[in-house]
Amino acid sequence: MTVHLVGAGPGVADLLTLRAARLLAVCDVVVHDRLIDPSVLALVPESTERIDVGKVAGGSRSQAMINELLVTLGRTHACVVRLKGGDPFVFGRGGEEQEALRRGGIDVHIVPGVSSAFAAPAAVGIPVTQRDVAAAVTVITGHGADDREPLFDWDALVRSGATLVVLMGVEQRARIAQRLIAAGMAPDTAVVAVERAWTDAQQAYGSSLAEIGQLLVQSPAVIVIGAVAALGDPTLIARLVASAAKPED
Amino acid sequence: MTVHLVGAGPGVADLLTLRAARLLAVCDVVVHDRLIDPSVLALVPESTERIDVGKVAGGSRSQAMINELLVTLGRTHACVVRLKGGDPFVFGRGGEEQEALRRGGIDVHIVPGVSSAFAAPAAVGIPVTQRDVAAAVTVITGHGADDREPLFDWDALVRSGATLVVLMGVEQRARIAQRLIAAGMAPDTAVVAVERAWTDAQQAYGSSLAEIGQLLVQSPAVIVIGAVAALGDPTLIARLVASAAKPED
Repeated sequence: MTVHLVGAGPGVADLLTLRAARLLAVCDVVVHDRLIDPSVLALVPESTERIDVGKVAGGSRSQAMINELLVTLGRTHACVVRLKGGDPFVFGRGGEEQEALRRGGIDVHIVPGVSSAFAAPAAVGIPVTQRDVAAAVTVITGHGADDREPLFDWDALVRSGATLVVLMGVEQRARIAQRLIAAGMAPDTAVVAVERAWTDAQQAYGSSLAEIGQLLVQSPAVIVIGAVAALGDPTLIARLVASAAKPED
Repeated sequence: MTVHLVGAGPGVADLLTLRAARLLAVCDVVVHDRLIDPSVLALVPESTERIDVGKVAGGSRSQAMINELLVTLGRTHACVVRLKGGDPFVFGRGGEEQEALRRGGIDVHIVPGVSSAFAAPAAVGIPVTQRDVAAAVTVITGHGADDREPLFDWDALVRSGATLVVLMGVEQRARIAQRLIAAGMAPDTAVVAVERAWTDAQQAYGSSLAEIGQLLVQSPAVIVIGAVAALGDPTLIARLVASAAKPED
């Protein structure tokens, strides 16, 4: 009669917490997203029921269906794990699932995970904060760059001087760069995009804010914008762009 | 000949990652801070050398001493773990240690940990982001509120609309609130301070920005400022203030 909202970390099994691994071994059912790595799911015994809700994820209607599923499972199973990439409470919609479960009278336990917001930069040696370089870090998602949903005060994001970490921002990266430059951020600000951080398929691309649209990066990836991006390990970061030509400005 | 900069998570052993636990079991020496929980150090075999650098931590001179120690150990031991609370690259000065080790020609591996910035709020059911409530989260430290070091553009922090998470901010909390209110943040903005999150000694206090100075909270604690703070589990959050009387304003 408990649903555990569990963070799976950035994508490899041994960056799960001990608590998450134990819960996966003993729970009755695991409800997971499409992007959870096979090495993580390998920690779940064969006999445990698994439900992949990745196919229906995305819209608010499908989130409502997931919420309803979790409440139903919470009523019929002693131990349910809702496994989410990274941390369940950092852009994971875990807060909404918690709310639905509370309303349904189901006990909710949170198991925090290693967030990709900090771990993906770390995978190439980038600290999101650093004395005398960045005194703050702000995490946003690319969805906020959508025209229909102007969620951010871009001027404020730039003026704050915080390192900017963008989750789910690959598609919107050129638009994000435009807005940041329009708000006064230097076009030569360092940028690194880390794709599939910590997995064997990890790729990282370094560039400048002005050239971010030309990066060959693909989803899922985390984009770090700010002076700390220049502190990364150059042997782990390619400087590949789609065109060798510099933009005309 | 490798130094691992390892995140110990928010303070209980089973919120370490599997990778961190394995390294603690097999490494030659563990260099740790004063605040690492005994339950975490219990994962280190009796025969492994331990060095507590907590006593000398704080100033820049002592950080230089730690950097030097790590380089020396990296030259003389096959496997060194530098164990840091939370995540090594989120206000952990891990970036500086990495830099010193690189300069000394020592291999550095990062093992990201569960950051208290997100995990402490989660311990009382607070998601740092939530659809229609907060589209961004900014993490700062209380040291930035010091008069001699005005690191932040407070107006920008307020205007950004991001949830504000303050690490190491207990002593400076009244000053931080003053600056945020002066920059236009509503005095009745929800605030929750979580002390020793995830340990048996966890305490959480809820209040408003205007009353933050009266909270009975003690270090170490994480302070969450913003509308998401109101989403926490009320059974886990006391509304204790030093004086029952409301401030005169």
